[in-house]
Amino acid sequence: MARLSGRDPSLLRRINSTAVLRVLRSEFGRAPLTLTDLAQATELSRPTVEGVVEGLVEAGLAEESPGGTEHAARRGRPARRFRFRAEAGHALGVEIGSHRTAAVLADLTGGFTGTVTHDVDEEAGAEERLAQAHGTVAELLDASGVGCRSLRAVGVGTPGIVDADGTVRLSTALPGWTGLQLGERLREAFNCPVLVENDANAGVVAERWQGAAAGAEDVVMVLVGLSPGAGSLIGGRLHRGFGGAAGEIGALHLLGREATPERLLSTTGEPLHPLDETAVARVFALARAGDERAERAMERFVQRLVHDVAALVLALDPELVVIGGWASGLDDVLEPLRGELQRYCLRPPRVALSELGEAAVATGALRLALDEVESELFSVNAG
Amino acid sequence: MARLSGRDPSLLRRINSTAVLRVLRSEFGRAPLTLTDLAQATELSRPTVEGVVEGLVEAGLAEESPGGTEHAARRGRPARRFRFRAEAGHALGVEIGSHRTAAVLADLTGGFTGTVTHDVDEEAGAEERLAQAHGTVAELLDASGVGCRSLRAVGVGTPGIVDADGTVRLSTALPGWTGLQLGERLREAFNCPVLVENDANAGVVAERWQGAAAGAEDVVMVLVGLSPGAGSLIGGRLHRGFGGAAGEIGALHLLGREATPERLLSTTGEPLHPLDETAVARVFALARAGDERAERAMERFVQRLVHDVAALVLALDPELVVIGGWASGLDDVLEPLRGELQRYCLRPPRVALSELGEAAVATGALRLALDEVESELFSVNAG
Repeated sequence: MARLSGRDPSLLRRINSTAVLRVLRSEFGRAPLTLTDLAQATELSRPTVEGVVEGLVEAGLAEESPGGTEHAARRGRPARRFRFRAEAGHALGVEIGSHRTAAVLADLTGGFTGTVTHDVDEEAGAEERLAQAHGTVAELLDASGVGCRSLRAVGVGTPGIVDADGTVRLSTALPGWTGLQLGERLREAFNCPVLVENDANAGVVAERWQGAAAGAEDVVMVLVGLSPGAGSLIGGRLHRGFGGAAGEIGALHLLGREATPERLLSTTGEPLHPLDETAVARVFALARAGDERAERAMERFVQRLVHDVAALVLALDPELVVIGGWASGLDDVLEPLRGELQRYCLRPPRVALSELGEAAVATGALRLALDEVESELFSVNAG
Repeated sequence: MARLSGRDPSLLRRINSTAVLRVLRSEFGRAPLTLTDLAQATELSRPTVEGVVEGLVEAGLAEESPGGTEHAARRGRPARRFRFRAEAGHALGVEIGSHRTAAVLADLTGGFTGTVTHDVDEEAGAEERLAQAHGTVAELLDASGVGCRSLRAVGVGTPGIVDADGTVRLSTALPGWTGLQLGERLREAFNCPVLVENDANAGVVAERWQGAAAGAEDVVMVLVGLSPGAGSLIGGRLHRGFGGAAGEIGALHLLGREATPERLLSTTGEPLHPLDETAVARVFALARAGDERAERAMERFVQRLVHDVAALVLALDPELVVIGGWASGLDDVLEPLRGELQRYCLRPPRVALSELGEAAVATGALRLALDEVESELFSVNAG
């Protein structure tokens, strides 16, 4: 039957504290708030708010705003004003990709404070890649004047199937990556939660946060890189699949033709190497200029992409497909892709280009880290 | 803040009534229960239980068991005993397919009370098909001695994209079906909720209820019929997609070869017609006997199936794939399909044959109707 548990005073305190923190953070960047403002916004009593705010100041999450009192001091005792301390902690997003390591840092409101990117040899082994990731993060923290202790959560996006604990179960793109206990290794270095996610999954989260998928709930993002992969949101939530392998469409081409993007986009008969933004842009520019071999290469590439995307669309029926993986050069594939999907799909989705380009994976990893921080700060069950 | 709404007496009564009904139903088929039994099981007071049970008897959902008093009458006044009235209402599941109309009836505990199936010409128009569906249902109700008024919900499974209100947005398999307001048309005939669902979606629900997918949460069911389709459960819930088109994989073959099952399974060069269980079983039997043309036909068919299933598996990463669409004859494709999926999928799923065969769609439609009845009976928000 419906029974109510007795009131738990620490739970109640936590609920109240969360409510005040939410208001403080939502007003971040605007005028600092008085205790009266906070009591009104939270519908809590003034003494309760006062006690809660003291706790938040002690925890470093709020501070009295020195400027606030001056404006308010028209008559009588000036009202104290408080603001959220966005700088009280940071979240970090890291991409460990086949050609690139990137890191991006944000404060507790999600405001970017810096980013660092380095190329990496696609043949690099696991230890070399890990060392480079650590170096990239250290460089970013240093440049941002943020200490490692300020990190409250780290998100990592990387190719392959990743278990819930951050172990890379299978990654065909990165040498020595399969079996690596990536989450555990990174947790040794960072004294905070570390979340490891498939790169395309991180990408789709990023595009929804501040890219082409803003406002959409059912999205497939296809990374058309060296080893094509896809990440999906269903009802706004990541769909990882039963074993974390959802969207690992790299093998789809084996069903049809033995065709990797490096071969499809080649104009010489030799695989295109390295397969990066510059190389792809060059092929697309040649095609636009009327070079026949480049035109055929592009046609092959679009057909390959149509196969990949159609399979995902027919299986999932998303509202929107986002095409990414490179920062530019993909514009030319959108129209042919849309046309082909119209032919094959009973209900063709919208198709859009990634707005975040090469920043998508690290940005998505950052968003996952911020989600972790927020659930820590705002969960009434925690703490 | 955490605020509790004032106690709503009718809500409380509803919660109590639901609790008693749940216990009565869960004990259905075992010994009838006394008021004391019910008070103990629900942790409600005896007077409360007595009032609730009176209400359930009035509503026809419970009845005093005449046999119960005899056994209990050892000393003093005999204890009254009550049972759930499973026969107080019925749920109906209907398949309206391209070759077949089927209906299956169950009581409020989900116990089958009968089924009727009729073949239908695949060229039949919408009105003819609707009339046949009504006739099939009438025949079933008549044979079961159940009045139309006893129906509390009707589920319908049919090929195509179906909107939430039961309108067929697009169906390539049934002539005149696209645009049909199937839900509305059926609601005119049945004085109860009518739920219309894509046939493969109904199929996967059925296999999870009492077939090959029992206990599984992430399942893809592929109907390998005339127009192949798939239904998916993600976390135990139907995945319909943004526009209800998820799993409508019929166009996948257009991407590769112009190949329908009738052509793939043909041993004569002419399409196999009709494409039904008997025809397929014949081809498979010939192949087992060493007939070369039948062997090649089967190879083509398996390759087609591998393409379909691999696309779904790579996109969704299910725990289990169930192959259905016919009652038998598919056994021979399981091993080659498993072998091919091992090659193409990073995390190959289990593959099982449908246990419900041709009954899957109607059975799933019945389960959806029963879900509707249960949410009506057991929702504390309703009534």
